[in-house]
Amino acid sequence: MLGYSIAIRRLQCLVRFLVGQNKNRLHSTMTTVPGIEADALNVLRSITPTLDLTRHKGQAGKIAVIGGCREYTGAPYFSAISALKIGADLSHVFCTKDAAPVIKSYSPELIVHPILEESYSVRDEDKRSISAKVLAEVNKWMERFDCLVVGPGLGRDPFLLDCVSDIMKHARHSNVPMVIDGDGLFLVTNCLDLVSGYPLAVLTPNVYEYRRLVEKVLNCEVDSQDGTEQLLSLAKRVGGVTILRKGKSDLISDGESVKSVSIYGSPRRCGGQGDVLSGSVAVFLYWARQRVAELEPRSNPTMLGGIAGSILVRKAALLAFENKRRSTLTGDIIECLGMSLEDICPVNRHR
Amino acid sequence: MLGYSIAIRRLQCLVRFLVGQNKNRLHSTMTTVPGIEADALNVLRSITPTLDLTRHKGQAGKIAVIGGCREYTGAPYFSAISALKIGADLSHVFCTKDAAPVIKSYSPELIVHPILEESYSVRDEDKRSISAKVLAEVNKWMERFDCLVVGPGLGRDPFLLDCVSDIMKHARHSNVPMVIDGDGLFLVTNCLDLVSGYPLAVLTPNVYEYRRLVEKVLNCEVDSQDGTEQLLSLAKRVGGVTILRKGKSDLISDGESVKSVSIYGSPRRCGGQGDVLSGSVAVFLYWARQRVAELEPRSNPTMLGGIAGSILVRKAALLAFENKRRSTLTGDIIECLGMSLEDICPVNRHR
Repeated sequence: MLGYSIAIRRLQCLVRFLVGQNKNRLHSTMTTVPGIEADALNVLRSITPTLDLTRHKGQAGKIAVIGGCREYTGAPYFSAISALKIGADLSHVFCTKDAAPVIKSYSPELIVHPILEESYSVRDEDKRSISAKVLAEVNKWMERFDCLVVGPGLGRDPFLLDCVSDIMKHARHSNVPMVIDGDGLFLVTNCLDLVSGYPLAVLTPNVYEYRRLVEKVLNCEVDSQDGTEQLLSLAKRVGGVTILRKGKSDLISDGESVKSVSIYGSPRRCGGQGDVLSGSVAVFLYWARQRVAELEPRSNPTMLGGIAGSILVRKAALLAFENKRRSTLTGDIIECLGMSLEDICPVNRHR
Repeated sequence: MLGYSIAIRRLQCLVRFLVGQNKNRLHSTMTTVPGIEADALNVLRSITPTLDLTRHKGQAGKIAVIGGCREYTGAPYFSAISALKIGADLSHVFCTKDAAPVIKSYSPELIVHPILEESYSVRDEDKRSISAKVLAEVNKWMERFDCLVVGPGLGRDPFLLDCVSDIMKHARHSNVPMVIDGDGLFLVTNCLDLVSGYPLAVLTPNVYEYRRLVEKVLNCEVDSQDGTEQLLSLAKRVGGVTILRKGKSDLISDGESVKSVSIYGSPRRCGGQGDVLSGSVAVFLYWARQRVAELEPRSNPTMLGGIAGSILVRKAALLAFENKRRSTLTGDIIECLGMSLEDICPVNRHR
């Protein structure tokens, strides 16, 4: 009898330990938006590729981040390393010469191209030739990339932004998808033609960037009452690009439908989380494009990529916050991407 | 009493379920190739030197990586640090001036020589003298090295590749073994004389590099039916160099025999794993040369080095993948080299 109760106590102890290892202790904050909440966990599972030993380097994704200047080096690193941590095979960064050694030094896992130039280092008479050289350098690689992320740590130097406009036009011409964030959104808001009508573009504005976009495109203020209708109009007006509006709930629309992702998330707002999202959406967008023909009902891969990126980063942010609380930094969230993905979509699952 | 045993059974059931969720479900994938599977674990054990307190710095191996340019700094780092993590005593990198500070910043364990030059930084009239200077700098060290790794992150700058050709000729003249990967294979495929007939050369092509090699040397397409025969022909035609063809199973041939290594391995294909292999093969090749006179039957040390490098990196990749899953990066694999080696061949073993 005593033996039984000791055995039970031991087993109970083991169960508590194992349950503690498995579960997410801060529960998802289920303030879902009624009717439009995406089935984000299943979206993520449906597009994430299975892994097997016959695959070759590059098949899980080759991502390039266009960003990184004299001032900003963390943002492009966060975006590019997030892509790898989710499962991309190769992650490139195209940045200025000043930024490159620093970004390289953050991690040997990235391939960093020191090719962009800012006005301060270029004479007026050289601008044309340097601009052509920058474009030629990026174009050598363009066809190999499965998705670009344009904007993390790009800065606002006019010459640099002109070069990036050229890169975006070429990417569009080559049908390479683009996720646009940060200073890339500044560029796009001032020159909507860069993305207008391009169905493979995803914009990921925060509250300020969204306000500027609404003011520019819809010529009105942000509607705090019916945000979904306004987002739908905005995405439609920009010709069906996908817009992921970041917030307490993330709202995603391609002008045809609106979906929200409300579960998980953390109250910490340290800089850099948007970069983790842009790198994540880039990978999921590519994966969604790979699988979209098999999916029922047929869906827009940019919507699926946005939804999957949103839920994964929200889960990783929650996990990091549970552990680090107020001291949570973006690097902590990146370290939680892998276990969050494995938790939602284990490697050994059966579809 | 019955209540207790039911409770125990339920708890046992729950424990099994939870353990099942937690445990590493990816076992080694034993899809061995019949007849030619190498006894890789015993090969590794037979060539790995015992350690004792009488040994001096350098006796366990002095490796040099030729690679690292403006674009690529991670690859030479991965190769050079892997050599140290397996047990080499000294690991050098010869790279361009731009790449050196970054590679140095990854680790103070490496000795990094900023001596290579790319075309963009050299005037035509200076090329001859600079080329001579580069060669003289490397030659000062050449006799001390037990193996070179040529190619990780080398890039394809024509002037730089010319200098590296000179280095390879000198290494061959000095009977220094060479492991050739990445852009080194691009160089060698275009100039087979650099390695043709040199029995101390090991080429480590991936699927794409192998295809180019087959097309160039055998003037045909890759035979997907009988890969072993074609590999044997290829190695023979290049004059008995050893070729380690990376893939689901690694295949290794010196033109005399073919061996495969199929156990372990991971489905993750993040960039950089080839660099870990090249650094590992370099160390094992040197160790095999040290011990080959004692081994029965007498074997080709380049074959033994290839087999041992293959099995160790496959085991480390599996260990890393079991822990990190989709977020496994090359740095994680490198961190598993030591425990993988200790697991296969403990320091305190008796031969």
